[in-house]
Amino acid sequence: MTLTFRTATRDDVPAILTLLADDGVSRDRGFGTVPEADDARIWAAFEAIDADDRNELIVASDGAEVVGTCQLTYIPGLTRNGGERLLIEAVRISSARRGQGLGGELIRWAVEQGRARGCTMVQLTSDKKRADAHRFYTKLGFAASHEGFKLAL
Amino acid sequence: MTLTFRTATRDDVPAILTLLADDGVSRDRGFGTVPEADDARIWAAFEAIDADDRNELIVASDGAEVVGTCQLTYIPGLTRNGGERLLIEAVRISSARRGQGLGGELIRWAVEQGRARGCTMVQLTSDKKRADAHRFYTKLGFAASHEGFKLAL
Repeated sequence: MTLTFRTATRDDVPAILTLLADDGVSRDRGFGTVPEADDARIWAAFEAIDADDRNELIVASDGAEVVGTCQLTYIPGLTRNGGERLLIEAVRISSARRGQGLGGELIRWAVEQGRARGCTMVQLTSDKKRADAHRFYTKLGFAASHEGFKLAL
Repeated sequence: MTLTFRTATRDDVPAILTLLADDGVSRDRGFGTVPEADDARIWAAFEAIDADDRNELIVASDGAEVVGTCQLTYIPGLTRNGGERLLIEAVRISSARRGQGLGGELIRWAVEQGRARGCTMVQLTSDKKRADAHRFYTKLGFAASHEGFKLAL
C-alpha cells in the first residue's frame, strides 16, 4: 500500500461525503447521513474551498481508492509575530482502513505542509468522545492545552 | 459607555498589539511582549487579513479608545450540508476594562455576525488555564465538547 496525498477534485466529492458520514460521533450529532451530492450547497462549498488559496480539501488515496480526507485552512493573524496558523478540520479515515497507521501518515503530512508554508502553529479540535483520537494526536506531538467550544447556529 | 464594533484599520494595529500582549497566559507562553509595530511580518499579516473576504480583524471601541479585539474567520466546508463555520480567535479585552461585560458583548456581536452570514457553527478554543473564560463561554451558550490540540512549529 502506498498512500498519496493530494488536493481533492470534483470527482472526489462523493467519496469524501461518504467518509464524512462514516463516523459514529457525527451520526450521534445527527450528521451521519450521506449528504446529497447533488445538493447545490455542497457544490457551492466545494467551489468556495477550491477557489480559496487559504483552504485546501485533501484526499489520501491508495491507488484509485479514497481512504482518508481532511481540510486545511491557513489563517493569517497578528499573534506570534504575524505567523499563519494551520487549522486541520474534518479528518476522516475509512472505517475499513482504521488501525493501520493511515491517520498518522495523513496528519504528519498535513503538519509538514504547514511547516513548509512557514506556519507557526498547527491546531485542531477533537470531540471529547474520541479518546483514541486524543492518544493519537498526543503521540504525534500535539498538546491538549485548550478547551474546544462549539455553538451550533 | 457605548461600545462599537468595527473592522480594524491600519491605525488600530498598535492598539491591537498592545491588547494581544496584555495577557498573562500569552506572557507565560513567551508571547507577552508587545511585537514591534514596524515589523514587516506584522504588517504583512494585517494586509493579508484585510484583503481576505473570509478573515476580519475586529475592534471594540469606547469612543476613540480600543478596548477589545478578536479575529473572525469564515471557513467553508462540506460537513453540515455545506455550511460555513465561524472561528473566533485572539479574543482580548483591555485589562483595565475586564469584569464589565465587554467580552460578552463582543462575543454576542461576533455570533450575530456568523448567524447573519448563515454560518451553521461558531467555534473557538480557550487555554485550559482560563477557567473564568470557560464559565463565560458556557454562559453564552457554547458547549465545551472538544479537546483543543496545538502543535507549535
